[in-house]
Amino acid sequence: MKRKGLLIVISGPSGAGKGTICKKWMQNNPEALFSVSATTRAPRPMEQNGVNYFFKSEEEFETMIEQNDFLEYAQVYGNYYGTPRKYVQQKLMEGRDVILEIDIQGALKVKERFDKGIFIFIVPPSMEELRTRIVKRGTEDAGIILKRFNSAFEEINFIQRYNYIVVNDIVEEAVRKIEAIVLAEKCRVDRNTELIMQLQGGT
Amino acid sequence: MKRKGLLIVISGPSGAGKGTICKKWMQNNPEALFSVSATTRAPRPMEQNGVNYFFKSEEEFETMIEQNDFLEYAQVYGNYYGTPRKYVQQKLMEGRDVILEIDIQGALKVKERFDKGIFIFIVPPSMEELRTRIVKRGTEDAGIILKRFNSAFEEINFIQRYNYIVVNDIVEEAVRKIEAIVLAEKCRVDRNTELIMQLQGGT
Repeated sequence: MKRKGLLIVISGPSGAGKGTICKKWMQNNPEALFSVSATTRAPRPMEQNGVNYFFKSEEEFETMIEQNDFLEYAQVYGNYYGTPRKYVQQKLMEGRDVILEIDIQGALKVKERFDKGIFIFIVPPSMEELRTRIVKRGTEDAGIILKRFNSAFEEINFIQRYNYIVVNDIVEEAVRKIEAIVLAEKCRVDRNTELIMQLQGGT
Repeated sequence: MKRKGLLIVISGPSGAGKGTICKKWMQNNPEALFSVSATTRAPRPMEQNGVNYFFKSEEEFETMIEQNDFLEYAQVYGNYYGTPRKYVQQKLMEGRDVILEIDIQGALKVKERFDKGIFIFIVPPSMEELRTRIVKRGTEDAGIILKRFNSAFEEINFIQRYNYIVVNDIVEEAVRKIEAIVLAEKCRVDRNTELIMQLQGGT
């Protein structure tokens, strides 16, 4: 029997650098798979179905919701976004590790349904640094920036629901830690039932 | 406050290759510390107190037992052997990782007293291979070899009390996994209370 892949959930507040980390991690681990979301928003030029998103009609999406086909979903500015359950599970069954970059609310929903995943919370080196990053990133006005920062600040409290915390100071260092986490998780006793049974069987 | 070190317990059946792994790991991680045992047996030529063992009289050793000074101890062929608790705890408080190479009975005793340690079970690639290694190693007769193998076989069942299982097929690979485990454990949310409090405090 083929060994199952791991679901690696990369989450954390806006501005922590989840995207950069996932991109770098994928470069180092091309055999893994970046989870593709489904959405009802219209494809932009150059976006491909199954690569950037699975593009769905609202009706299709709502049928998927009814059929419990999402690990998590949310509605943002009138469009649905969601993580298809079957796609992820199929790849995991094939033995491929799947990486999922997702906000904190989404990650908590995924955890309810799939607690065998590895939940990694990415944090900035400090909240001061996070503020700087949020300010630098946006062209938004001060009110929106403050709102984002306060939201990030509140979200830090959800960290206790995660397995790991990785400080994103130097990206390469953060990626190295995530790689170590994945390798270590594969050595966990509770993920090696089959090997242990083989040894106990004397082979 | 200085971050505490980790207690890394390397255990497994006789013939799994614990010693080789620990030696290699220490070469790669010279800042860590190999836990030195206490014993009542006489020092052999070249053995130094505090390096190879802490040499104690039987009276001293028994006083230490009474004072609960051991993480674990056992009597083998009339001599005491034990892992001093204070020495290990002092080094951990100083922020140094401590590696402890120990048999399965000893490891289980350490776990009762120090469950924050990382308990790694080293296994051979197969029980067949373990048999070969035990046969190769000793000059003992067939009866002793069989006894050792049967004991290793029974001990495999204790694996469920460990956190990790590492197959010792290629030593470098096994050491790389242990290094990943140590790095990953340092990222665990429950080992980063202080960092999380800092972030929650807004700094």
